[in-house]
Amino acid sequence: MNYPKGTKKEANSSILSHEVNYKNRGMTLEGELNDSNEYYRAIEKAYIYKKPTPIKITKVDYPSRDKAVIKEAFFTIPSTTDYNGLYKGKYIDFEAKETKSKTAFSLSNIHQHQIRHIEQINKNGGIAFLIIRFTTLNETYLLTANDFLEFIKDQERKSIPHSYFKEKAYLLKDQYQPRIDYLKVVDQLIGGI
Amino acid sequence: MNYPKGTKKEANSSILSHEVNYKNRGMTLEGELNDSNEYYRAIEKAYIYKKPTPIKITKVDYPSRDKAVIKEAFFTIPSTTDYNGLYKGKYIDFEAKETKSKTAFSLSNIHQHQIRHIEQINKNGGIAFLIIRFTTLNETYLLTANDFLEFIKDQERKSIPHSYFKEKAYLLKDQYQPRIDYLKVVDQLIGGI
Repeated sequence: MNYPKGTKKEANSSILSHEVNYKNRGMTLEGELNDSNEYYRAIEKAYIYKKPTPIKITKVDYPSRDKAVIKEAFFTIPSTTDYNGLYKGKYIDFEAKETKSKTAFSLSNIHQHQIRHIEQINKNGGIAFLIIRFTTLNETYLLTANDFLEFIKDQERKSIPHSYFKEKAYLLKDQYQPRIDYLKVVDQLIGGI
Repeated sequence: MNYPKGTKKEANSSILSHEVNYKNRGMTLEGELNDSNEYYRAIEKAYIYKKPTPIKITKVDYPSRDKAVIKEAFFTIPSTTDYNGLYKGKYIDFEAKETKSKTAFSLSNIHQHQIRHIEQINKNGGIAFLIIRFTTLNETYLLTANDFLEFIKDQERKSIPHSYFKEKAYLLKDQYQPRIDYLKVVDQLIGGI
């Protein structure tokens, strides 16, 4: 697949580092969210986890009766988001992305299928959102599905400006435990529904 | 990974056939469930989908700037179930398995992590269950998480006898559309909660 420009290396290396070198986690947004979810599970606050990376398998070897080795596969365009789970009986669903830009989050980072997924979750009574980190600014935002979908109705725009996050999204502060306490914002969203 | 005896071929060929030869679907339980979920989505009754197959990627090639080819990967033991989604605002979560046995469903088909996952979904207010098909008998059952967890409390047992399904589970009849109308049972479960 073609990764959107500028995100290719990040996306693949994060998949690899997460799988192969578990020690590296905690440095990226993904690592911090995995840690936060682990913490939420440990204190039995919520049960939220990361979905497997979607791939298309085209060649499999069976060197012995019990072992299968995938010899060729491709990353496929994700049709859902990365994270989902349960909090206070509610379906939680979100996508997390980093950007190096200081001025805008490029919409090429979110695929059409993912947008439809977010719409569907929203429509069917789940709580969906994006967690976007502007790494250069060291700012992490939670943008609700409603505010995200409202913005992209205007099909002309290719990116969401940083100012829209400042205006509409919730700033998530880095802390010790959990690293990113996004459920505090979800509490507000549940209260406001 | 080691697949439980007797399920290896099925599991892998179903992954491959689903990805590579889309035409073959509809023959297996997985195919029928995918069709049913597609139907539920089309009539906007529910939004339930299959998760990607979990794999561990160990080698990736980048033949050109935009393309990544996975050159080595392994199937990993699933830590969650195959299907989840939303129905009437509820979190729905289930695992589907076929067995050729006429007398019992082997518990080696359900991994420890999946059992914990089902427990967690249940505890956090989701609706979790198993859909088990006895292919030789041509019988498909929905077994609720509660009845499943109740049964496996007795750690001595290595399988769930067919009689337990007859007694506790809901028989799902094959029909035209949706192929397997398991949400009819979920309606009863929601009513009974």
